[in-house]
Amino acid sequence: MPVERVLPTPEAHDLLDLVRDLIGKEVAPRAAADESAGRFPREVFATLGAAGLLGLPYPEEHGGAAQPYEVYLQVIEELAAGWLAVGLGLSVHTLSCFPVAAYGTDAQRESLLPAMLGGRLLGAYCLSEPHSGSDAAALTTKAVRDADGYAVDGVKAWITHGGAADFYTLMARTSADGARGISCFHVPAGADGLSFGEPERKMGMKSSPTAQVRFDGVRLAPDALIGAEGEGFRIAMAALDGGRLGIAACAVGLAQAAFDAAASYAKERRQFGSRIVDFQGVGFMLADMATQIAAARALYLDAARARDAGRPYGTQAAMAKLFATDMCMKVTTDAVQVLGGYGYVEDFPVERHMREAKVLQIVEGTNQVQRLVIGRAIAKHDRL
Amino acid sequence: MPVERVLPTPEAHDLLDLVRDLIGKEVAPRAAADESAGRFPREVFATLGAAGLLGLPYPEEHGGAAQPYEVYLQVIEELAAGWLAVGLGLSVHTLSCFPVAAYGTDAQRESLLPAMLGGRLLGAYCLSEPHSGSDAAALTTKAVRDADGYAVDGVKAWITHGGAADFYTLMARTSADGARGISCFHVPAGADGLSFGEPERKMGMKSSPTAQVRFDGVRLAPDALIGAEGEGFRIAMAALDGGRLGIAACAVGLAQAAFDAAASYAKERRQFGSRIVDFQGVGFMLADMATQIAAARALYLDAARARDAGRPYGTQAAMAKLFATDMCMKVTTDAVQVLGGYGYVEDFPVERHMREAKVLQIVEGTNQVQRLVIGRAIAKHDRL
Amino acid sequence: MPVERVLPTPEAHDLLDLVRDLIGKEVAPRAAADESAGRFPREVFATLGAAGLLGLPYPEEHGGAAQPYEVYLQVIEELAAGWLAVGLGLSVHTLSCFPVAAYGTDAQRESLLPAMLGGRLLGAYCLSEPHSGSDAAALTTKAVRDADGYAVDGVKAWITHGGAADFYTLMARTSADGARGISCFHVPAGADGLSFGEPERKMGMKSSPTAQVRFDGVRLAPDALIGAEGEGFRIAMAALDGGRLGIAACAVGLAQAAFDAAASYAKERRQFGSRIVDFQGVGFMLADMATQIAAARALYLDAARARDAGRPYGTQAAMAKLFATDMCMKVTTDAVQVLGGYGYVEDFPVERHMREAKVLQIVEGTNQVQRLVIGRAIAKHDRL
Amino acid sequence: MPVERVLPTPEAHDLLDLVRDLIGKEVAPRAAADESAGRFPREVFATLGAAGLLGLPYPEEHGGAAQPYEVYLQVIEELAAGWLAVGLGLSVHTLSCFPVAAYGTDAQRESLLPAMLGGRLLGAYCLSEPHSGSDAAALTTKAVRDADGYAVDGVKAWITHGGAADFYTLMARTSADGARGISCFHVPAGADGLSFGEPERKMGMKSSPTAQVRFDGVRLAPDALIGAEGEGFRIAMAALDGGRLGIAACAVGLAQAAFDAAASYAKERRQFGSRIVDFQGVGFMLADMATQIAAARALYLDAARARDAGRPYGTQAAMAKLFATDMCMKVTTDAVQVLGGYGYVEDFPVERHMREAKVLQIVEGTNQVQRLVIGRAIAKHDRL
Repeated sequence: MPVERVLPTPEAHDLLDLVRDLIGKEVAPRAAADESAGRFPREVFATLGAAGLLGLPYPEEHGGAAQPYEVYLQVIEELAAGWLAVGLGLSVHTLSCFPVAAYGTDAQRESLLPAMLGGRLLGAYCLSEPHSGSDAAALTTKAVRDADGYAVDGVKAWITHGGAADFYTLMARTSADGARGISCFHVPAGADGLSFGEPERKMGMKSSPTAQVRFDGVRLAPDALIGAEGEGFRIAMAALDGGRLGIAACAVGLAQAAFDAAASYAKERRQFGSRIVDFQGVGFMLADMATQIAAARALYLDAARARDAGRPYGTQAAMAKLFATDMCMKVTTDAVQVLGGYGYVEDFPVERHMREAKVLQIVEGTNQVQRLVIGRAIAKHDRL
Repeated sequence: MPVERVLPTPEAHDLLDLVRDLIGKEVAPRAAADESAGRFPREVFATLGAAGLLGLPYPEEHGGAAQPYEVYLQVIEELAAGWLAVGLGLSVHTLSCFPVAAYGTDAQRESLLPAMLGGRLLGAYCLSEPHSGSDAAALTTKAVRDADGYAVDGVKAWITHGGAADFYTLMARTSADGARGISCFHVPAGADGLSFGEPERKMGMKSSPTAQVRFDGVRLAPDALIGAEGEGFRIAMAALDGGRLGIAACAVGLAQAAFDAAASYAKERRQFGSRIVDFQGVGFMLADMATQIAAARALYLDAARARDAGRPYGTQAAMAKLFATDMCMKVTTDAVQVLGGYGYVEDFPVERHMREAKVLQIVEGTNQVQRLVIGRAIAKHDRL
Repeated sequence: MPVERVLPTPEAHDLLDLVRDLIGKEVAPRAAADESAGRFPREVFATLGAAGLLGLPYPEEHGGAAQPYEVYLQVIEELAAGWLAVGLGLSVHTLSCFPVAAYGTDAQRESLLPAMLGGRLLGAYCLSEPHSGSDAAALTTKAVRDADGYAVDGVKAWITHGGAADFYTLMARTSADGARGISCFHVPAGADGLSFGEPERKMGMKSSPTAQVRFDGVRLAPDALIGAEGEGFRIAMAALDGGRLGIAACAVGLAQAAFDAAASYAKERRQFGSRIVDFQGVGFMLADMATQIAAARALYLDAARARDAGRPYGTQAAMAKLFATDMCMKVTTDAVQVLGGYGYVEDFPVERHMREAKVLQIVEGTNQVQRLVIGRAIAKHDRL
Repeated sequence: MPVERVLPTPEAHDLLDLVRDLIGKEVAPRAAADESAGRFPREVFATLGAAGLLGLPYPEEHGGAAQPYEVYLQVIEELAAGWLAVGLGLSVHTLSCFPVAAYGTDAQRESLLPAMLGGRLLGAYCLSEPHSGSDAAALTTKAVRDADGYAVDGVKAWITHGGAADFYTLMARTSADGARGISCFHVPAGADGLSFGEPERKMGMKSSPTAQVRFDGVRLAPDALIGAEGEGFRIAMAALDGGRLGIAACAVGLAQAAFDAAASYAKERRQFGSRIVDFQGVGFMLADMATQIAAARALYLDAARARDAGRPYGTQAAMAKLFATDMCMKVTTDAVQVLGGYGYVEDFPVERHMREAKVLQIVEGTNQVQRLVIGRAIAKHDRL
């Protein structure tokens, strides 16, 4: 019972049909077991790649599918409904490709993008550090320029796909000049001096490795630099604008999956002689959940259309991320409640959904950082 | 500092410009004084009518402007931001025209619609009764058929424009058969036996008369019947689907007005040596308000586009009404909070906004009724 | 149907019985009409005074009733349930007496307190100014010391009982030394140079005058100073600790009154063939309201017992004020919702309750200030 | 940094000191590892038993400690702050002892209670079944009377300590007469025909076994019946009144533990050059958390004192359970948020707290059942 989607083209409908088919056959059936075992489904990403899904919003000339964000994000949403680690993984991969695609030279795009978008490689995005999370501009990993290129030293933290990715998009410090001293680099997984911490033991998304990425004298050629020196923070923030929409879409998909499970249970389960969906105590809760999901979906699609139309959308992206992920936390928590004791055990997916939801309020800017971004826009501008 | 709107046509942009101009000159400047005095701004509706705004979403052949709901509702939103009584009044007028426009015979449309849509007449919608509010199908006002037409007896309650309207769209009982015994009628204001209660003393929207409408042997010609006998409840519910979108748009406009006042104050007011907008305690509150408004707007526009595309949209309309009006109550209450003591007095508009917001959670189906509508759709269908 | 109260002594039960009797006969019956007319019920305070209620928590030797805060606050709660302007008025009076009672010399207490506590005089508390609200220490009203005493110039804003009080407890600046440059004074209403602004046009509590109090060369004798010079801010904050408990008690009383009206309506009103209280959509809402009220009452009583036992209670008082007034805003808003259209009109008291509730989130430190107070305590101490 | 507690006797202070000492040495240090391993800490209960803590609120003559609920519940709260499985386990044990203690004959009390309260035995409470959760009176497990006693057949579900307990307090059907056909039995763990399902794979509280308890022709002697035949449902509900207070105390303790971890982190963690506790975005969140915890504690203690004084307290117990557990879900979720990424991993306790919190909204009556209980009291009585 798929969500009825309004899509801009017949091609987009076909794409979504393909995606749903893949999810039903290759993604959803493995989610519970792999999450329980903490096993990273690298081969699922290979399948997505083979289907042409790892470069959706990028130009066709470099191997992308030239899909508008409005469509790309609905693909993310569906994947996240089937398995968050996959939907979020695709969003992170897309984020990791953004700097080369948007700020790379023609030469860099030609040499790097086909492989990045073509489906055989998986990316990771290295911005956070143990002591700089919300205050990203305080990062201390250093890239020191010398005759042959750059030498990188430092530790990145909370890196999705850390240790499993094929390339790492890195923000490192090339001068002491605060946010303006940060530069962006492309680092292949096999680089000497690159190593990885143990995967974090997380509350959820256990199949998706999150780990420290350690740079110990990693040598980079001069053309590993994406954009100009000092432009890295601006690139990182622009990448996050899009990334936040990906998180919002993940949150909507995850919430939809939890809602579907709860609604389905409520129509089966009988107490006091009736289906529990027919008690207002449950029915009103489901009505609120459905309403919140619909609002979040409308909000992220609205921001996506602004991006697709070339309008500024950063504040809207922050709003969509904030609203959708807070909503998802609430909806998944309530979905467990609808199932009662059955909701608290692994036999049903909603306990997993709830554990997964929490990470979305934290990644790519905690929801406090989103409020900071939105609040500053209000403080500065006459009109958002 | 107008909201940046995405509109489907250049014509729609022109329309919105016209509307904003009217609001700035004819609507907003009088709102506070007329609300305080409880004076109904009949002449403002005349001005709207002269500008062609009283028939926006109806066909041009009958004097309408053939605007999609997506555009019509944004006009409502802007009007409500300027003065809720006017935005809501226009929404109620549009609702009152719906039965004739959608269910009338060709003859009825030709004879009635030009005047109803042309700007000289104002409508009212008579469904609720003192003892049937949420349970609308329990209404007892009777229309008894005889040789010459119908004789109507009963009392309608909570009627917006009651005593001020030029025509009354009436739901009355033509048989004892529950919801299937209700029929819809068009009643001109001058009908014999029609009288009105004292205007209710309301918390807000004091300029807009709300009153009982009493039918004491009112005689109606046979062609006062809109649609078939027994079809009235279905007509009433279809009318409310559109009406609820109007209420949602009103709620977004009202919340936007309160937000604008709060943001503006927060950028001026200084405490502890800084603008209060720069304290996270205030900045985060404004960020949440702006986010909620954006989500509500996206949600009602999404439902409007579904209607415009001819897709079913009743559940979405209920969601939009529920979400937008709960949001509006919260946002207006918080807007008062941002202004502190200044927010609690008539010198600033936000105390009025807050008083006005409350009625939106109640009209055209309380938000409990919306949850009932949505919950039943969940209980019945595989997919909303 | 009174709240069942746990009181520490039989005397306290007698006191509450007396209070309820007074409320039923002298307070509640006039509330709606006087609020509607904006008429200050000075004679009601005279009645309270004659009954010995204007000095409840102060020592008997100076005319007080030596009641613990646990009892005094429940009196406030009951009065506020009957009429907020009276409950809050008594709380403000008690606050205004605090500096003399707690920091006055023996001579000041002997000369001033008997009249202040004896029931013939009504007090006001002058701390806020147009440009210093949350940042109270930034006040600029000056008291300049000279040979004969002090000359006071400045404007106080948002003063409850401004223009109606018999004495004004004033915080004024005696040196430029920030919070440490503020001193506390006792000012009789008849002082030369004392004048009052027009009463503010408020959303609610219209019977209770709130006005600017203007000092234009007001002369005060040296013994008008309460406590030492420079001690005023500390005195003001200590006074507010108690005052905030008074506001919390008001909020609980007001919410209780709204809940009682809503519950009573829900047991009478029938829709769909049943009392609406029997629908979970309404019953669960009432259950949440009752629960929140009970929690707020328990919290303020807990803080009161801490005060009565001589333990620090300032943080708890801020918590009680924050929780109870946010709760009251929510509960009164929901009470209107339970009554639907009937809740939005003056025929029932709940629309007034909702308008009154809002002021409680603002007075004696906005709820943002309470969060600041609590947050700082968390930041400073190992344990609240 | 212990919570400052107001306790009725010096003996109670000594008891709390003892408990804190035990927690610090024997309980808290093992919590994380045992939860991670899913290992039931039977020996911790033995330690509690040896310290006299397994019969706190029961009479001394049968081996109890004759402590008021006000004290007993604060012991539960502290234990739950150290390790929820232990605090909740003690609450369940106490619940399981209640029927014999309150409804047993003198002979039953003398023969059973000393062992049950003495610390060597652990109890379980068997009410829920796979198809009767919220609708407890629909249970179908049968106890058929014959010449020698009773033969019991059926399946109980969601039983805390299922398979690990030494005795099972059972509600079973002795006649078809709905709630009046249920009786209460005491069943020793070694009974023939008693078996247990696999422990449920839960989101949290993994150390505490929850399992089906299966009765397959289990024979009970006539004196296994507690109270009269048909009195079981009433006994079960009375037991739950006390049990719900235990859950409320658990929720407060768990929330306090999460708050302490979050506050402690916020005072250490620096971003943007300051401790994050000093940003209002975090400080206000902590202030709200602390306030909600304080309100929940005050509310359950209030209900406990009502019970201790012999007043009716069932509705208050439902309120305390509802409020405290909803609060705990919110506070633990926010505690994770304060720690950001660090909150989402097992290195800090808050991710465990959040997973544990969810079960409290479900056990001993879901929070929907609590609202039903409270709503019915409102519908029936003039005064709660």
